[in-house]
Amino acid sequence: MGHKIAILGTGNVAWHFARVLENAGHVITHVFNREIEKAEKFALDFFNASTGNSTDMSQVDASLFILAISDDAIEEIAQTLVLPHGSMLIHTSGSIPLSALGYAQTQNIGVLYPVQTLSKGQPIDFSKVPLCIEGESQETLNTLEEIASGMSETVYPLSSHQRKVIHLAAVFACNFANHMFSISKKILESNQMTFELLQPLIVETLNKSLDIGPENAQTGPAKRGDLETLDQQFNALSNDAELAEIYKLVSQHIMDTYAD
Amino acid sequence: MGHKIAILGTGNVAWHFARVLENAGHVITHVFNREIEKAEKFALDFFNASTGNSTDMSQVDASLFILAISDDAIEEIAQTLVLPHGSMLIHTSGSIPLSALGYAQTQNIGVLYPVQTLSKGQPIDFSKVPLCIEGESQETLNTLEEIASGMSETVYPLSSHQRKVIHLAAVFACNFANHMFSISKKILESNQMTFELLQPLIVETLNKSLDIGPENAQTGPAKRGDLETLDQQFNALSNDAELAEIYKLVSQHIMDTYAD
Repeated sequence: MGHKIAILGTGNVAWHFARVLENAGHVITHVFNREIEKAEKFALDFFNASTGNSTDMSQVDASLFILAISDDAIEEIAQTLVLPHGSMLIHTSGSIPLSALGYAQTQNIGVLYPVQTLSKGQPIDFSKVPLCIEGESQETLNTLEEIASGMSETVYPLSSHQRKVIHLAAVFACNFANHMFSISKKILESNQMTFELLQPLIVETLNKSLDIGPENAQTGPAKRGDLETLDQQFNALSNDAELAEIYKLVSQHIMDTYAD
Repeated sequence: MGHKIAILGTGNVAWHFARVLENAGHVITHVFNREIEKAEKFALDFFNASTGNSTDMSQVDASLFILAISDDAIEEIAQTLVLPHGSMLIHTSGSIPLSALGYAQTQNIGVLYPVQTLSKGQPIDFSKVPLCIEGESQETLNTLEEIASGMSETVYPLSSHQRKVIHLAAVFACNFANHMFSISKKILESNQMTFELLQPLIVETLNKSLDIGPENAQTGPAKRGDLETLDQQFNALSNDAELAEIYKLVSQHIMDTYAD
């Protein structure tokens, strides 16, 4: 059965959540933004939604209040909210613990965190977005499980600590991997070559990695223990001490990882 | 007009090159392998091809001899080859300089290096594989340009030094990026979570990176200069000094890269 849901925030996560929740049979009844114009513009897509910039939501006709706002603001807004009796409050952040909602007016608190990079206005197949849920009580968790299952095929109940682990893992897999591309691009361009040259290789390598697992897809001089090439490449980076050190450390880590 | 071509080697590159060259209108006339059975098995697919394990190829009916053998063997084999008068000899390696063929019998030497990971028996769209060519003389280069253009849409004339730069750039973009995935997977699994959880995020992030450029796609705590999260994550790695150091160095490099 559909829930009546208030969305707090009008950014990337709010944009996706509101649409996916409505498609799943829920009703968006209220949109909050500190700048009322933003709430009004957002609510145009949701026929029944009231709008507001007041944190007093005691008269809002909703049982679930979703904080889809910046990490920094979650704890503060949660403390100032006035909510209808018995309503549930959740946030959608990967890095903020459930306890940040501990001083909210309601005890029905939880988290519904989408493990995906979301951009406003760019619909994606949300059924493939992993959703991590956490609830203060089993009842809250059950409700979140029901709602999340209507949004996506993969729902993981995870603790605040586990979400932190995911965030750390994502830093390596996404932020750091992407930065390796940036370094590669700079190396090529400072030698008058284009990064495009490497793109087919990158795509094929990473598809293989996701297909058979990164530990089975590893190649390169460090994996082979090819010390001559490692020395040569380290020396080629001698004009950039920081980069040379990264080369050395990551190569060493690969050698240690695959040492017999 | 088609060339008569001898393939030396029966591995991954030989497998792809022979097929693509034949499709481009050339004729594979000879297959060499030190183990004659391998040459014979390989040549089954090429009606007109003779086979052999002798480096005396003076009687082989070919004008182009392609060394598609392991990097370590290129220089040695090239020195022992006896070739028909006026024939051309090339290797296909990214990391071996053209000069490794300097003591071969012929002066028509060159390189035709495919920037892609190739696996025997797995056909790919070779027209999208960037090919890097190098020739000792302009005449050799012209011939290679003609042959390479029949194999792929993208052909780059590059020096031996430039090929080394590509190899270094590929280490960062492929080997190191893939190792970041391995680290991520280990972090997740040591906390009883599955790497699959991150896969949609990885795919989306890297598609974005290749789409708008890695420097525009960078996100994360280091990019934002979020020192609190950086400290927290660094401390979470305190039981693995090597990994913590990688975390610190790469984060610092990202901060330096995006500092105003």
